[in-house]
Amino acid sequence: MADPVSLAASCAMPPVLSKSAVAAGEVKRSAHMKMDSYNVGAVAPYQAMPVAGPVITHHKSTALPVVEPHPEMTEEEREATIAEMIGSYMKKLAERTHHHMGYPYNLDFDYGLLEGLTKFSINNLGDPFIESNYGVHSREFEVGVLNWFARLWEIDEEEYWGYITTCGTEGNLHGILVGRENFPDGIMYASSESHYSVFKAARMYRMEAEKIPTLETGEINYDDLKAALVKNAGKPAILNVNIGTTVKGAVDDLDRVLEVLKEAGYTEDRFYIHCDGALFGMMMPFLSRDAPMVTFRKPIGSVSVSGHKFVGAPVPCGVIITRFKYVMALSSDVEYLNSRDATIMGSRNGHAPVYLWYTLTRKGYEGMRRDVEKCMRNAHVLKQMLESAGIRTMLNELSNTVVFERPKEEAFVRKWQLACEGDIAHVVVMPNITVEKLEEFVSDYVQSRARVSIAAAKRVACEAKAAEEDL
Amino acid sequence: MADPVSLAASCAMPPVLSKSAVAAGEVKRSAHMKMDSYNVGAVAPYQAMPVAGPVITHHKSTALPVVEPHPEMTEEEREATIAEMIGSYMKKLAERTHHHMGYPYNLDFDYGLLEGLTKFSINNLGDPFIESNYGVHSREFEVGVLNWFARLWEIDEEEYWGYITTCGTEGNLHGILVGRENFPDGIMYASSESHYSVFKAARMYRMEAEKIPTLETGEINYDDLKAALVKNAGKPAILNVNIGTTVKGAVDDLDRVLEVLKEAGYTEDRFYIHCDGALFGMMMPFLSRDAPMVTFRKPIGSVSVSGHKFVGAPVPCGVIITRFKYVMALSSDVEYLNSRDATIMGSRNGHAPVYLWYTLTRKGYEGMRRDVEKCMRNAHVLKQMLESAGIRTMLNELSNTVVFERPKEEAFVRKWQLACEGDIAHVVVMPNITVEKLEEFVSDYVQSRARVSIAAAKRVACEAKAAEEDL
Repeated sequence: MADPVSLAASCAMPPVLSKSAVAAGEVKRSAHMKMDSYNVGAVAPYQAMPVAGPVITHHKSTALPVVEPHPEMTEEEREATIAEMIGSYMKKLAERTHHHMGYPYNLDFDYGLLEGLTKFSINNLGDPFIESNYGVHSREFEVGVLNWFARLWEIDEEEYWGYITTCGTEGNLHGILVGRENFPDGIMYASSESHYSVFKAARMYRMEAEKIPTLETGEINYDDLKAALVKNAGKPAILNVNIGTTVKGAVDDLDRVLEVLKEAGYTEDRFYIHCDGALFGMMMPFLSRDAPMVTFRKPIGSVSVSGHKFVGAPVPCGVIITRFKYVMALSSDVEYLNSRDATIMGSRNGHAPVYLWYTLTRKGYEGMRRDVEKCMRNAHVLKQMLESAGIRTMLNELSNTVVFERPKEEAFVRKWQLACEGDIAHVVVMPNITVEKLEEFVSDYVQSRARVSIAAAKRVACEAKAAEEDL
Repeated sequence: MADPVSLAASCAMPPVLSKSAVAAGEVKRSAHMKMDSYNVGAVAPYQAMPVAGPVITHHKSTALPVVEPHPEMTEEEREATIAEMIGSYMKKLAERTHHHMGYPYNLDFDYGLLEGLTKFSINNLGDPFIESNYGVHSREFEVGVLNWFARLWEIDEEEYWGYITTCGTEGNLHGILVGRENFPDGIMYASSESHYSVFKAARMYRMEAEKIPTLETGEINYDDLKAALVKNAGKPAILNVNIGTTVKGAVDDLDRVLEVLKEAGYTEDRFYIHCDGALFGMMMPFLSRDAPMVTFRKPIGSVSVSGHKFVGAPVPCGVIITRFKYVMALSSDVEYLNSRDATIMGSRNGHAPVYLWYTLTRKGYEGMRRDVEKCMRNAHVLKQMLESAGIRTMLNELSNTVVFERPKEEAFVRKWQLACEGDIAHVVVMPNITVEKLEEFVSDYVQSRARVSIAAAKRVACEAKAAEEDL
């Protein structure tokens, strides 16, 4: 065991182990942190980086070291120092929360009434429908929320199984695992614009997977999907259908996917559909317009959404709903599993269900509908504002994700926390994004573009002057 | 979309969908909730239930439905009703927290200073060492905590990779996945008393797995392990070593496991060891006595622990530390992964790192050592108290988990939230368990046994009287 770090040493710099411990020939993390090869294009949103670039490019995190008590500091001074650090961290959080545009998180929530809950270690370990002996849980809230979602997606309480997950990724990991356990030799199909957790799942689970190209909107290319299904007709299909892709907010048309399956000769006992609803899966049911609805009245296997996205919560969380008959497959293998726990994680955050229950109950169905309408309306406002300022945009009909050309000033991208991929960026217009905030953002963006243009013009002038002098 | 539930209807009972929607031949969840076949033995701790019993046995959860606003209720009345519900829920949590003995959770924490953090949606999505564009994160705390653990387990900052997980299970899922990605045809070895997430991982990842019997202490049977390794000599080995098993708190001897590997002919390039440190992995470094230390100076691949266990936190969380050279394997497959995110979950709870940082900083190394000593001392006090009361116990030398015969009164088990398996129960003596609380518990237990004994004696007397009357 190395000596504990003294406060004096660690205030100045993060504690480091003796370098003598480093065995020769070991792979160094810092060698992959190429701070000099600053490659903007290599950083995709949500850290889903294409493998074509260097391993880790930039934006290296700093560390706030855990510091040991120091004999020259009294207990009070120490407590005061810690309080000051937390205070300045909270100020940073407030500023960062104010200038946020890029991620589909609803940052407008008030859980003041629930603050006291952080006194308790709430854990819904295992199944939501059976209590474990650990009594500090929130299953009553969890099952209440699950029933609400079961109604939203039209499945009888007796026929669904589900749980509140730790994030959207866990929902995808679970849905695809349920698919695989029901169709062990099934091939996974998903579009190339699917969330990266979908292909991560296929790799984890050692499944054959087919990446299907997309249309320009970001939807799956139905013809390519059909061709792939026909080619692999001998094996069952496990499909990931995107209800709003990560970057362009594109909705794969569930009805067309079902048609394609039929045309390719797949009967209902030979496919499993998981709908990745991340953000839009919870917005679509509230739209009045015609849309290919996600409902268990259609032959789908599971739907997942994130809870910290449209609903909004301090902690990442999500919901997965599947058919009880399908989840049975996860509990059947005596030799390996030896467990009735059909979740991915065993210990599960018990605060998240209370947050979700609280917002759903306070807003009610009508409140949710109003939020959806506001987002859709403001997304169009943003699109029009950008276009009136001469900035090219794209907004899918069923989406609140406004896509536009990637701003060239990295400082501007960071200030507004835009998620970028290649040469595009997006703003996801969430309930906390007001027209006033959009105004602030657009005028800031226009000024940023002006700075970039002036700098470019100056470079040309500078080169011309240099050429003149050379003559 | 079904109609929203009205408050009037849903206050009385949970909302239900029309039964007409139920397709014939569907599998019903309630049919597996056999409330009548109350089988105590079938419920193992942490819901890791053996498959031999009925699918779901008892302790069905209730639901607190999400209720819609009702025209006859004013907004104020509604808010007051919700506040009352939350208030009574918090009282229940306080009572349940007070009467808790069975799970290895440190419920003694004070995060009052951090309460304001629940105003923010803190998310460390992706890698801890590279910032994403989402600015509301706590990576500085996360990396600080990771560096602290790297020092604890003696690995250079340049050579490790790791992250703060959502729970102990995620740590095991990650460690075993890293093992598999480095040894794709490796066979997993773990003792039959390993946490159930270990075999869940093998099943998820489609790995060959060998379940090795245990000694009476709960340690892995080293001879059986050796025999299995020799039998499978053609394939690499991925070993899960338990640093404190779930039920008996048994520590697999890492040094003996390394010896066994050597004897069976496995060189270091042909095995990967994941240490499941859940609770005890963070306590062992603070013990003064001789113990087979977990350190990266030995040829291990990864260590994981839970954060809500020994440190204590409102939300489940954990830590995984592995060697950077091993984690590279997770980022190498272009075709499937197309991502540099080497975590299991993508979105990650950003509150947990602040909780861990805060406790580690406030307590310091010495405070942690005092907590460990107190737990070890009080575990012996409990053992002695139980034995003096005539109750058979078992306490491994390297453990704060006191195992004893399972109390026969189910109400007593539920009151004290004991984790039980088969005919044994345990109390994990955590920092929040004082001698006073142990006294309260033991005298309650003795009274419970007395009630059971009197009832048994009365039954005999009753039968004898009935037999007399029959004569």
